[in-house]
Amino acid sequence: MARTAGENRTSRLTARGAATRARILRAAAELMYVRGVGATTLDDVRAASDTSKSQLYHHFADKDALVREVIALQAGQLLERQRQRLERLQSLRGLELWRDAIVQRNALRNGAYGCELGSLANELADQNEDARLALAAHFTTWQALLAAGLRRMRDNGALRPEADAERLATGVMAALQGGYLLAQTARDTTPMEIALDMALDQVRAYAVEPGAAGDQA
Amino acid sequence: MARTAGENRTSRLTARGAATRARILRAAAELMYVRGVGATTLDDVRAASDTSKSQLYHHFADKDALVREVIALQAGQLLERQRQRLERLQSLRGLELWRDAIVQRNALRNGAYGCELGSLANELADQNEDARLALAAHFTTWQALLAAGLRRMRDNGALRPEADAERLATGVMAALQGGYLLAQTARDTTPMEIALDMALDQVRAYAVEPGAAGDQA
Repeated sequence: MARTAGENRTSRLTARGAATRARILRAAAELMYVRGVGATTLDDVRAASDTSKSQLYHHFADKDALVREVIALQAGQLLERQRQRLERLQSLRGLELWRDAIVQRNALRNGAYGCELGSLANELADQNEDARLALAAHFTTWQALLAAGLRRMRDNGALRPEADAERLATGVMAALQGGYLLAQTARDTTPMEIALDMALDQVRAYAVEPGAAGDQA
Repeated sequence: MARTAGENRTSRLTARGAATRARILRAAAELMYVRGVGATTLDDVRAASDTSKSQLYHHFADKDALVREVIALQAGQLLERQRQRLERLQSLRGLELWRDAIVQRNALRNGAYGCELGSLANELADQNEDARLALAAHFTTWQALLAAGLRRMRDNGALRPEADAERLATGVMAALQGGYLLAQTARDTTPMEIALDMALDQVRAYAVEPGAAGDQA
């Protein structure tokens, strides 16, 4: 209901109104990522997006509405990036490149802030059931992209038939999320690199190439 | 400086004052765990601990002081539990029992709230440098307990000499933290179980027993 109303309202926006809405949303997403959702007030968002109170409330009824759209924005951007990489995944080398891209992105900020979706999930999952359900669905989508890539690797012979793509995808995703948290706390991506390498070792354990299983450091 | 002042003040407390202080701290720890730090106000803590504003401020100068003590309380309890289990760790079976105990504890709340230290780290690491340093030190302690157990397993012959205890401990800790987050978001401990099992498979890959590596489901 709320979503439909929001979409109707969006469709009636002028170009200028749409630009204002996008500016508010970008500012809110940035603040909530860097400071956390709880520490971000609507006044902060208003100030950061250089909008008036009436503009803000015209586009977003309340903080929950803004949080809902921030989740959609962050998930949309993250899943689009992940889709581009993971839909082409078909080899262990490809999986290593996926790992490298994530680590490098995180190294740019010395591990700070963590995962765009993971940090929202940590803060919102127990407070806001709509947010939890949305975030759970986005994690499912993300993990399904990874699982599909691993199934492709199994189907093209890079992994042995007994490799359980769903199970491996869950393990890699947990290693990624745990790695983000340890890197955020240590302000150092090293634990994230180790965690991902160890999870990738579990994928390598199913590699068809002889000697590839479990020997990588 | 602040800590020394706090300890001096504590040492001057009457038994009744100490009980009040402990009641405030327990209420704050519970609220910050369940709702998050950002969403917990000093008024919430006052109401939940049934204390007056002057009592609260007598024991804790401000929210930062309370957060500092909440981190110490949660870390103290968690690390004491972990120490009791991990200091006896000397076999793969022991590692599986450690895993089972954590999963069972998390299953009691259907995965909600996540790890007592991990959720604080996620919310505070980028906002409060003192909190980040304290949490990083607690994670280091926790991981060192795990690494010491893995070294013991290597020294007593349960793991092969080439097992890198520090690396394995980092991977298991990341799997645990990522597992907590996925379980919290899904309200289901299954992803945590899979993540821990996959990380334990990496330990099993170094097991001395033939056939123990990589075959467990």
